[in-house]
Amino acid sequence: MTTTNGPGRPRDPDVDRRISQAALDVFGELGWAGFAMETVAKRAGIGKASLYLRWSGKEALLTDAIRAGLPKISDVDTGTLHGDLVELATQVLALYVGPGSRAALRLHLEAASIAGVAEHYAAMRTAQISAARHIIRRGIDRAELPAGTSVTLLLDTLVGGAMMHALTTPPGRRDTLAAGAAEHARALVDFLLHAVAAPA
Amino acid sequence: MTTTNGPGRPRDPDVDRRISQAALDVFGELGWAGFAMETVAKRAGIGKASLYLRWSGKEALLTDAIRAGLPKISDVDTGTLHGDLVELATQVLALYVGPGSRAALRLHLEAASIAGVAEHYAAMRTAQISAARHIIRRGIDRAELPAGTSVTLLLDTLVGGAMMHALTTPPGRRDTLAAGAAEHARALVDFLLHAVAAPA
Repeated sequence: MTTTNGPGRPRDPDVDRRISQAALDVFGELGWAGFAMETVAKRAGIGKASLYLRWSGKEALLTDAIRAGLPKISDVDTGTLHGDLVELATQVLALYVGPGSRAALRLHLEAASIAGVAEHYAAMRTAQISAARHIIRRGIDRAELPAGTSVTLLLDTLVGGAMMHALTTPPGRRDTLAAGAAEHARALVDFLLHAVAAPA
Repeated sequence: MTTTNGPGRPRDPDVDRRISQAALDVFGELGWAGFAMETVAKRAGIGKASLYLRWSGKEALLTDAIRAGLPKISDVDTGTLHGDLVELATQVLALYVGPGSRAALRLHLEAASIAGVAEHYAAMRTAQISAARHIIRRGIDRAELPAGTSVTLLLDTLVGGAMMHALTTPPGRRDTLAAGAAEHARALVDFLLHAVAAPA
């Protein structure tokens, strides 16, 4: 994993995680207009100076936080297409039902207009889509899917279906969904694999 | 169609549409923090006074603009399930590939915390989901779908798949998608109807 910041990066993964989560929370709530090193430091419970020791500015901080918060699609490799798709759907459900949901939605709105973040975010999105497409193509190569499977339709409905399910779950039922994310992901994947397995 | 404003509502549907679009544009770009009657009036090219003649305040204005901009799911009734789903998917694609996309995403983020808008938006969402579920149930009643069809999975993947496709289409290709929305919608619906038609 590459990072945009230098040798001063924190070594403690707990602190790292707390800072990333604080950065995504602040961005999700206030957007770029309200995103400041001081606000993130306060939210994470660390000093502003030590944040500056680790990140040169808020662009680098937000870029690293986004990278840490995105689903790790390129790491998904369970050995079967079914297992890979369940893991992918579980990650998307967890993202949109969890505390990172607001930040993820806001990135769709604002990322392209934030200098110093836009290009990194676009590159991460491209890499994510490419990793997801690779999962499907691997399934076709292994003959787990018919050769004519539409990679685009399968991914749109898998990722979009997981996102939509999380976004339309009422606040009072989100904890239940978060706890049962893998189970819902399996139902979603089974549903979609019928689509590609059916005779045209 | 019910409205939240009184007898002063504009009669000219062109002006109506321009005001609604201006309101959604301003909200999409600036959020509630930057949403002001004066800004919307300027954007729509009408006087601020005539906006106040028609709407008592910005809550009512935004509520009406949201209602006008949402897909008209309750009006969808083509006579066949296939036709209804294509129309639904076309409306969702058009929304998220068009100028209302930013407003739609921002509503997910902000609507619940805007007093005077939150309850109307929640009621509209509930009505939308209920109208969409009714389309699927009508298809089951007509035996166009197996009785055991998961209404939730079919709607999540249809609406989410259309939304995701629009959101991941690069800016340079959005006009092409907008022009071919009905064609993509048909491919999406055909893909998903295989899912429910396949033997379990």
